[in-house]
Amino acid sequence: MTTTTPVLSVPTPSAAFERSTIERRDVGAHDVAFDVAFCGICHSDIHQARNEWAEGIFPMVPGHEVAGTVTAVGDEVTKFAVGDRVGVGCFVDSCRECENCEAGEEQYCLKGEVPTYNGRFYEGGDTYGGYSKHFVVHEDYTLRIPEGISLEEAAPLLCAGITTYSPLHHWGAGPGKKVAIVGMGGLGHLGVKIAVAMGAEVTVLSQSLKKEEDGRRLGAQHYHATEDKQTFKDLRGTFDLIVNTVAANLPVDKYLSLLRLDGAMVNVGIPSDADSFHAFSLAGMRRSLAGSKIGGIRETQEMLDFCAEHGIGAEVEVLAPEPAVIDEAYERVVASDVRYRFVIDMAALED
Amino acid sequence: MTTTTPVLSVPTPSAAFERSTIERRDVGAHDVAFDVAFCGICHSDIHQARNEWAEGIFPMVPGHEVAGTVTAVGDEVTKFAVGDRVGVGCFVDSCRECENCEAGEEQYCLKGEVPTYNGRFYEGGDTYGGYSKHFVVHEDYTLRIPEGISLEEAAPLLCAGITTYSPLHHWGAGPGKKVAIVGMGGLGHLGVKIAVAMGAEVTVLSQSLKKEEDGRRLGAQHYHATEDKQTFKDLRGTFDLIVNTVAANLPVDKYLSLLRLDGAMVNVGIPSDADSFHAFSLAGMRRSLAGSKIGGIRETQEMLDFCAEHGIGAEVEVLAPEPAVIDEAYERVVASDVRYRFVIDMAALED
Repeated sequence: MTTTTPVLSVPTPSAAFERSTIERRDVGAHDVAFDVAFCGICHSDIHQARNEWAEGIFPMVPGHEVAGTVTAVGDEVTKFAVGDRVGVGCFVDSCRECENCEAGEEQYCLKGEVPTYNGRFYEGGDTYGGYSKHFVVHEDYTLRIPEGISLEEAAPLLCAGITTYSPLHHWGAGPGKKVAIVGMGGLGHLGVKIAVAMGAEVTVLSQSLKKEEDGRRLGAQHYHATEDKQTFKDLRGTFDLIVNTVAANLPVDKYLSLLRLDGAMVNVGIPSDADSFHAFSLAGMRRSLAGSKIGGIRETQEMLDFCAEHGIGAEVEVLAPEPAVIDEAYERVVASDVRYRFVIDMAALED
Repeated sequence: MTTTTPVLSVPTPSAAFERSTIERRDVGAHDVAFDVAFCGICHSDIHQARNEWAEGIFPMVPGHEVAGTVTAVGDEVTKFAVGDRVGVGCFVDSCRECENCEAGEEQYCLKGEVPTYNGRFYEGGDTYGGYSKHFVVHEDYTLRIPEGISLEEAAPLLCAGITTYSPLHHWGAGPGKKVAIVGMGGLGHLGVKIAVAMGAEVTVLSQSLKKEEDGRRLGAQHYHATEDKQTFKDLRGTFDLIVNTVAANLPVDKYLSLLRLDGAMVNVGIPSDADSFHAFSLAGMRRSLAGSKIGGIRETQEMLDFCAEHGIGAEVEVLAPEPAVIDEAYERVVASDVRYRFVIDMAALED
């Protein structure tokens, strides 16, 4: 009924990582089994491992940027075959019946999609993420990683990539549009690459100019420091779209003032405290303040295909699958000391 | 060069109204002169007469819901003739050159449109509003009031009507869409009529059920009290669009929770204090929080034509043009004691 798989796990909230094992279900009729090659480290892994959001489920095996190669498929599987390069993002099931699932927007499932880790399957049992040697998932929640992107560069696309691609696509980034990406971190650096590939004129708004060289290398035409007051004067009324990747409370009105008529500021970072704004900042130029959350399966596949076509992958630092290394990487993520995404070399974890 | 016209004016901030006179420019080559028949009282008249927003210009002649009949036109005027029924809304000029003016969205003029009162013309001189016996305005900022709407029912359309029509139109209210109108006042009652005429399924969200009978008479299919906690449970995830006409600080997250995937809450009331929200209220269902401000000349004309076609006018109480009557009406507006818009019978003001 189950198969034992080695993992890197957190036994209790905020504890250090340790090597252990979990049980995964055997490959069902519609399941895909794969060996995890790389798993990205997302800041939300840290929030959850440290119980900074809701009460988590422990032991926890984080990881929802999972990429690997298929080792077995169930009898009824039609979409994947052994040897295929595949990935799993932030959820592994959804109700399939609500209006949002039917619209292909499973990330907004009204029953609540099943998170890849720190969740429970509808039919019972805890979910475990990609800091794991092996993975089993229903084929409908499996993505295909196209040729042309390495698995380590692809893994972070499954959360950081789709989280920026989806709002850029939904709010019409493209030729003739001026787009600002707030924050040059794991999400932001992919947002820049994707917005540039979509044909938009891209500006990075980062706290300082420290990463300006990188931003321009990734294709941004403009780069401004938000710690410089002049930035908000010079760029007033400039942007059609601002995608804010920063999960801290920003002075919302100041950012809204950078939007032109009908512009939208879309938050993909979620600060834990409330934000505040003045209604006139919106009404004055018919601006919108919005939010967006990853993407559905169809759109995630579209994003992966788009990235492959445009040669886009994450800029990664590869980590050995050792508990102490992951612990240290978490500290560095919290300190914003990573350019631009850690991925764990899960293939190197001993079986 | 100028002509004297009788007005109702406020000599100093928060003073009582008095009868006085102002000078209006003579009819220029592109100007339309008209006798004001009716002028609506907008809550913003009160804010400005009482200096509750910025420092106002006094003496002040409020009024930006102005309807009347043309008495003279300049030599170059092509759009209007003597005897035409016309109106003026919230602005009487704009730069005509910025990208927003060129797009026909003069209400978002980047130079700043010239307000109908409590403003200054670009070429100098204060602007005076519609609590006035006569009016002179450039033909490009003059609206045509179609046959089929009386002038007293038409006057409030020029601010309250366009303020609700514009977001309903812009955000796609129509058949198959569930629309909530928050507030059953001067703006809200017109929002209900217009949204119903557009074919949307309309819900009124009012503090209590006191005006439910009116709301249903105006065409709303549903009516809920926001003082009843059950309302927010029952209507969770229901609406495509919420148009909020209330100028007080609302619990934004609670209202956002009523929106379905991709729903928008558009504020047309502007509270003086900041509002607060949690980013997850937006990201959780890709919701938007937006604002909107009156409409451009083209859209205002479209709204008037739409209202005439659908037999929509404001529900009005007609006031005599006497200072004490206006003073009392202001108190009643502040107390929300009007169903649903006061208009002043300016024709009855002695010349």
